[in-house]
Amino acid sequence: MKTVSIALLGCGTVGKGVIDLLEMNGSIIEEQLNTHLHIKWVLVRDLEKYREMNLPPSITLTTDFQDIVSDPEVEIVAEVMGSADFAKGCIEQCFTCGKSVVSANKDLIADYGIPLLKLSQENDVDFQFEASVAGGIPIIRSMHSSLNSNAIETIIGIMNGTTNYILSNMTERGLSYEAALAEAQQKGYAEADPTNDVSGYDAARKIAILATLGFHSAITFRDVSVEGIEAVTQDDIVHATEMGYVIKLLAIASHDEDGISLNVHPAFIRKGHPLANVGGAYNAVFVRGNCVGDLMYYGQGAGALPTASAVVSDIMSVVLHYNLSMTGKREYVWHETHIKSPQANKAPYYLRMIVANAPGVLSSISGVFARNNISIRSLIQKDETTEIAEIVVLIDSSADGLVRESLRQIADLSCVHRVASAIRVIEV
Amino acid sequence: MKTVSIALLGCGTVGKGVIDLLEMNGSIIEEQLNTHLHIKWVLVRDLEKYREMNLPPSITLTTDFQDIVSDPEVEIVAEVMGSADFAKGCIEQCFTCGKSVVSANKDLIADYGIPLLKLSQENDVDFQFEASVAGGIPIIRSMHSSLNSNAIETIIGIMNGTTNYILSNMTERGLSYEAALAEAQQKGYAEADPTNDVSGYDAARKIAILATLGFHSAITFRDVSVEGIEAVTQDDIVHATEMGYVIKLLAIASHDEDGISLNVHPAFIRKGHPLANVGGAYNAVFVRGNCVGDLMYYGQGAGALPTASAVVSDIMSVVLHYNLSMTGKREYVWHETHIKSPQANKAPYYLRMIVANAPGVLSSISGVFARNNISIRSLIQKDETTEIAEIVVLIDSSADGLVRESLRQIADLSCVHRVASAIRVIEV
Repeated sequence: MKTVSIALLGCGTVGKGVIDLLEMNGSIIEEQLNTHLHIKWVLVRDLEKYREMNLPPSITLTTDFQDIVSDPEVEIVAEVMGSADFAKGCIEQCFTCGKSVVSANKDLIADYGIPLLKLSQENDVDFQFEASVAGGIPIIRSMHSSLNSNAIETIIGIMNGTTNYILSNMTERGLSYEAALAEAQQKGYAEADPTNDVSGYDAARKIAILATLGFHSAITFRDVSVEGIEAVTQDDIVHATEMGYVIKLLAIASHDEDGISLNVHPAFIRKGHPLANVGGAYNAVFVRGNCVGDLMYYGQGAGALPTASAVVSDIMSVVLHYNLSMTGKREYVWHETHIKSPQANKAPYYLRMIVANAPGVLSSISGVFARNNISIRSLIQKDETTEIAEIVVLIDSSADGLVRESLRQIADLSCVHRVASAIRVIEV
Repeated sequence: MKTVSIALLGCGTVGKGVIDLLEMNGSIIEEQLNTHLHIKWVLVRDLEKYREMNLPPSITLTTDFQDIVSDPEVEIVAEVMGSADFAKGCIEQCFTCGKSVVSANKDLIADYGIPLLKLSQENDVDFQFEASVAGGIPIIRSMHSSLNSNAIETIIGIMNGTTNYILSNMTERGLSYEAALAEAQQKGYAEADPTNDVSGYDAARKIAILATLGFHSAITFRDVSVEGIEAVTQDDIVHATEMGYVIKLLAIASHDEDGISLNVHPAFIRKGHPLANVGGAYNAVFVRGNCVGDLMYYGQGAGALPTASAVVSDIMSVVLHYNLSMTGKREYVWHETHIKSPQANKAPYYLRMIVANAPGVLSSISGVFARNNISIRSLIQKDETTEIAEIVVLIDSSADGLVRESLRQIADLSCVHRVASAIRVIEV
């Protein structure tokens, strides 16, 4: 049986998962490929730390990337490090040395995916990155190998485990945002500095990658309008529940004749929609194609073995391509990309306002909506005995710019203390 | 640009869908393949009927399969007819003439999938069948190209639209089985003779195909134990709802060290499980891999364009393989298959019994379970004023054989009129 030598760049959670998976499933993988997969090198920063990990003795640890890139036996490099810039340099060297690369690095792909794909093709090697989005869910290969008969219209992902954990626990256990975040940090689901997750940047990178493939367009992280979940309160969760919705951080890409819109923001989604039931650490990706209709993929978005499942399926695909002498032969088409102004996005909105408990308040607020030609779908003002009241409004689908302008006008009303929340309602 | 000539065998719902999809999405497909897809021939039974369909003028209708098989220009044949035996003969001829085949025909694949795959490989042509299971959901390619790094442990499908429509309407609108079936027939979701759907045979064919790929085992339709939904009553639906479950027709394949079990039957599944929310015409496939964990795919399981989406994605894959001279090169591995006795399957059960409203009934029934070492999870006997009472029992996970034997003993009790229902509870 032929042997293919592989190098891992990094040996964190995902790298260790790849090593464990190949130990567990090596025989079923080998019989499918008629090829033995041998992890020859693992690049680490600190040799001492990894000597204690009891890695298989056939693996050689190194801190020097040149050991790997200069080893002609290494045909496939699996990059599971995480940092974008160092990884990019390593991957470019791999390509020019004729090595195919598999990457789990969303930061890298969201910023440099297309140039790296082009470089890989110029060097007749593969570049695959199934694990960069939604962990074990095989959405990347599906997007370019199964849904390629469709014009993709909409992609909606719940792709950040930290925010889904926080929102699920705010909903199910009545926790405040702060308490849910603290618990997530304590359990290791959120980092000490949670900004990248709670502010939506992580989800933005993932939707940029999916939209690039789905819309055949060169989209990067910087094209995505991003809003996090930091302002979502327990009050909003309670109102959502009462109205038959749940709040999720959604990453949304849509494509029509006017262009592409790319947004990450918290959203109301109706209970009963398949996306509404995606809780805790699970991820989901909803795709609407012009022929296939609505599809949803659901699975574990992170974790050592689920992510390793995606990395190793990419490695297997590269091995098949080597065995057929067809690495680097996949054609990609990139169209000119027109990103729509975020101001033009339209959605119904849930709005929560803190107002004076006085005559004329409702008339003033509804007057602003009327003058801006925004129609009110429902309005709740609860019986209040204090001087301050809360008004909750659902407005019909309206352009973001118009909603923002109306909210500025409402905030200027003397009877309005503040606009506390403005969350889009996503109806798909 | 190169042109590939395609022939369609059949021009029913799916065939017309393929023609329509290529009209709608031809340009995005061509630019991805750098190849024009031309439907040259369509095989039909009745030329007159199809002359009224306004097919594109570039298509030639024929009633003679030899026109197609003897045309050297035709490289790909899409078989969208449905009958297994005539289709099998046609496909074999295509292979020996060097033509690749794409099929949407589950009856064919469930019975002859592996021999046809072998024949295609012997002739260096492709045989693909994404559309044979779950319509537009890309589960087939996912199973062999993305989940291949896993040992697949369990596959559970809701893959029959007719039964899902009937059960959804029994649940949501309180219809009887008979009324829901009649409505499904009236709306065209069920055939005049609904046996193939309501008895579970359609779902059995689909799970046989998925298990063949997932477990690398030669499984056919005849290996599946099948039970339909004909005995599910509105009473069962009401009890399920009260107990926090929904009833679905599930096709279940599982694989452990003792072998493979393959079953289609109605089942209780807990509300909140992703499979419980799959309503109406939607299909879902749940897969548990030993590394990826739990995944679910959700989408339209039938219909012209969703199914055509799968057929055309297969055609695109074959074109890519032709362009790289690699048709017929996909390796498959088939293990020896050990199918477990259905008697050995274990599951908790919901049981409904019609009994005399008399002293000692509960003691007699619970005595049977005790003697068979089956523990009772919950038991409901509702307050009844008539001479006949209903007892509903949930028993803990027990072997099918033991449950059947216990139910025979219970049915023999003089105080028991009949065992009205016995439905498994699936906990995944």
